[in-house]
Amino acid sequence: MRELQALIAVPSVSAQPAHAADVRRCAAWLRDHLHGIGFPSSEVVATPGHPLVMAAWCAAPGAPTVLIYGHYDVQPVEPLSAWRSPPFSPLLRGADLFGRGASDDKGPLFVHLKACEAYLRTSGRLPVNVIVLLDGEEEIGSPNLGSILSTLCADVILVSDTRIPTPDQPALTYALRGSLNLELTVRGQGIDLHSGAFGGAIHNPLQVLTDILASLHDRAGRIAVPGFYDHVAPARVSHGPTDAQVVQDAQASRGWGEPGYSLYERTTIRPALMITQVLGGSARSAIPSCASARLNVRLVPDQHPEYVAALLRRYVQRVTPPTVRSELRVSSAIGPVVVDRHDPYMRAAARAYEHGFGAPPHLLRSGGTIPAVRILRDTLGVPVVMMGFALPDDRMHAANEKFHLPVFFRGITTSTAFLALAAQVYAGTPTWSTSAS
Amino acid sequence: MRELQALIAVPSVSAQPAHAADVRRCAAWLRDHLHGIGFPSSEVVATPGHPLVMAAWCAAPGAPTVLIYGHYDVQPVEPLSAWRSPPFSPLLRGADLFGRGASDDKGPLFVHLKACEAYLRTSGRLPVNVIVLLDGEEEIGSPNLGSILSTLCADVILVSDTRIPTPDQPALTYALRGSLNLELTVRGQGIDLHSGAFGGAIHNPLQVLTDILASLHDRAGRIAVPGFYDHVAPARVSHGPTDAQVVQDAQASRGWGEPGYSLYERTTIRPALMITQVLGGSARSAIPSCASARLNVRLVPDQHPEYVAALLRRYVQRVTPPTVRSELRVSSAIGPVVVDRHDPYMRAAARAYEHGFGAPPHLLRSGGTIPAVRILRDTLGVPVVMMGFALPDDRMHAANEKFHLPVFFRGITTSTAFLALAAQVYAGTPTWSTSAS
Repeated sequence: MRELQALIAVPSVSAQPAHAADVRRCAAWLRDHLHGIGFPSSEVVATPGHPLVMAAWCAAPGAPTVLIYGHYDVQPVEPLSAWRSPPFSPLLRGADLFGRGASDDKGPLFVHLKACEAYLRTSGRLPVNVIVLLDGEEEIGSPNLGSILSTLCADVILVSDTRIPTPDQPALTYALRGSLNLELTVRGQGIDLHSGAFGGAIHNPLQVLTDILASLHDRAGRIAVPGFYDHVAPARVSHGPTDAQVVQDAQASRGWGEPGYSLYERTTIRPALMITQVLGGSARSAIPSCASARLNVRLVPDQHPEYVAALLRRYVQRVTPPTVRSELRVSSAIGPVVVDRHDPYMRAAARAYEHGFGAPPHLLRSGGTIPAVRILRDTLGVPVVMMGFALPDDRMHAANEKFHLPVFFRGITTSTAFLALAAQVYAGTPTWSTSAS
Repeated sequence: MRELQALIAVPSVSAQPAHAADVRRCAAWLRDHLHGIGFPSSEVVATPGHPLVMAAWCAAPGAPTVLIYGHYDVQPVEPLSAWRSPPFSPLLRGADLFGRGASDDKGPLFVHLKACEAYLRTSGRLPVNVIVLLDGEEEIGSPNLGSILSTLCADVILVSDTRIPTPDQPALTYALRGSLNLELTVRGQGIDLHSGAFGGAIHNPLQVLTDILASLHDRAGRIAVPGFYDHVAPARVSHGPTDAQVVQDAQASRGWGEPGYSLYERTTIRPALMITQVLGGSARSAIPSCASARLNVRLVPDQHPEYVAALLRRYVQRVTPPTVRSELRVSSAIGPVVVDRHDPYMRAAARAYEHGFGAPPHLLRSGGTIPAVRILRDTLGVPVVMMGFALPDDRMHAANEKFHLPVFFRGITTSTAFLALAAQVYAGTPTWSTSAS
């Protein structure tokens, strides 16, 4: 607890250059901590951006290698006024530890470090080979993760950066949507124009932009770009929250979107296109010379970011009138991920959860995207187990982020069990059961 | 010249509170200057905002009263990097005096002060009664002008805050469009939402906003709000710049807008609706809870701002889907102005221009709006003569604003002639002709 508080106290905000030294300090703290709990080799690995932290214990011949991935960088905290207690002065209130990064992802990554520590302090050894890989750039898209991975080998990747429904109900996430971020720019006349002198005679780039943005959906809520749904795999899901729950979680008055699917389906097995920002004009009455928008597209199997980006680019070109020029630029692109729910490591994780939480996990799809997971899977080519420890009300990315301590302790038990069960997967003899303890 | 430079050197930026003391200093400078050139009564009049400056010479019994209106406040200068010389260190380059406010409106108002000075210094009297009224809030919509006017009487209002085509070609502006500024806000769910977790299931307020904005025009370029053109007076104009000139002035590649009218007509006798700003979203991938836009509508005879605002509000309500709430708020509203081109004072102004510039003036409509002109006309109920002295390349409101000195000197001759001719209008004997001097 005191250790986790010390870790949360370091403001390792990766998106803000002013915190670069704090990010480095956090990496050094983790390297020292890993060494202290018994990892013989532990180092800070420099990248062109923020460093990674790596540690390994590889003295279990004949056992698989589990790569534990987590990230020690955190989201910005602004506005500070929204916080009930300072974000980097971790505070225990009831059974919750409050602070930026508490549940995303310092708490969950600490779960696995504490499980390793338990083994190393008692028996001096781990049941499997373990590589710990802690990213300092997850919140900015893990731009330097891929290059470091080429030097690694592992049999399974264990990531805890997802949610569970309640403290008593664990969940394995088996699918993530991909994410395609685009910037659409419309340029018109060479200069901003007086709206009185020229209003009505010159095509307003901001108006053209809204025309294009409005045309991306039809009235029913479908994406209207021809071909957009071409490769979307037909699927239905029977589990997941009800429409009423989704609407309530969103603090909305009602749902919206593609007809024929539940709200949960619309956020998981169906793609979505969001206008996330429009930038154009000023408080002065002028026709701006230029206007732009950011778009975020969430992709599902079997959509390819490049294919969708090309479709969108062609569409925007086609609907751009000859009075202006438009440009659609890709800022980032990550494909979707689906994990085989029947993989032996997934079964081991389910058993481990039963051991830690006393309940079998739900198997959930997430509408979100974790670039690191797709990068890890593509580069290492092995299964990814997404074992969640964050609660829906833990306020990841928001003010008053917290981590629920009962989950922390159940998580340590779960992780301990998973490492033991993973050893048996590799030996081909998964015999552990909930009654085996 | 040195006096005009001293006036331009005071940074009387009305829109920026940091310059409030400068605005007061500028008013005091003008009061003292008016006193110095022979106005016996000259005072700074406090308002809830920036002060007005008033001076009067009313010793011409049987002669009309000319109210000379000008404004001594100026537009902001940012970004400073765009200026070739500091905006408040007036600099003479060739025949142009550079500095903020040089042509809008310190130079043109000074034209009339110099004309009065010429009379007062030589004969000790003016040919007409003169009230000088200098506004310190024109660039922010003259919010306090109306209340001061109730104490005044005049027979004609002389305003120099418009343009002429070239230094050799003067112009009287006889029509201004009105201006209706609105703010459209769309509110959705209570909080910003993670675009992965909720994208596709909750109606994005920013998307609804672009839908509404896009629906305000049809494909041809007409305003699509039912009833919008209801009271637009049928009119055509034969004068004014060609389409090619308008496109070139705008630095655009081609024109746009309501079919069946020239570009000049579209900016003068036809109304226009511009999206001047969209505010919504952020660089983070989120579905914002709220988004808003500013709209500027330019109105023509016989449109009423209140009627048009009500139409727009009804339309926005009708097209707002039940997933969100929308609100359309009026920020400011000013009706259009048309002056009788055949009014005797307009004829006197035309003759005066012939005297000063050696050419009869063009009679032009402006697509812009001068709230003060509408307020003056409505409150005093007398003709307004808009005698322009600014050139198209004088960069009013932009960086490197300037005033062309040959126009300044021709303007003084023109103003001197106008005051003499105005005296004859009132006497019912306008006999001055270009050969009379």
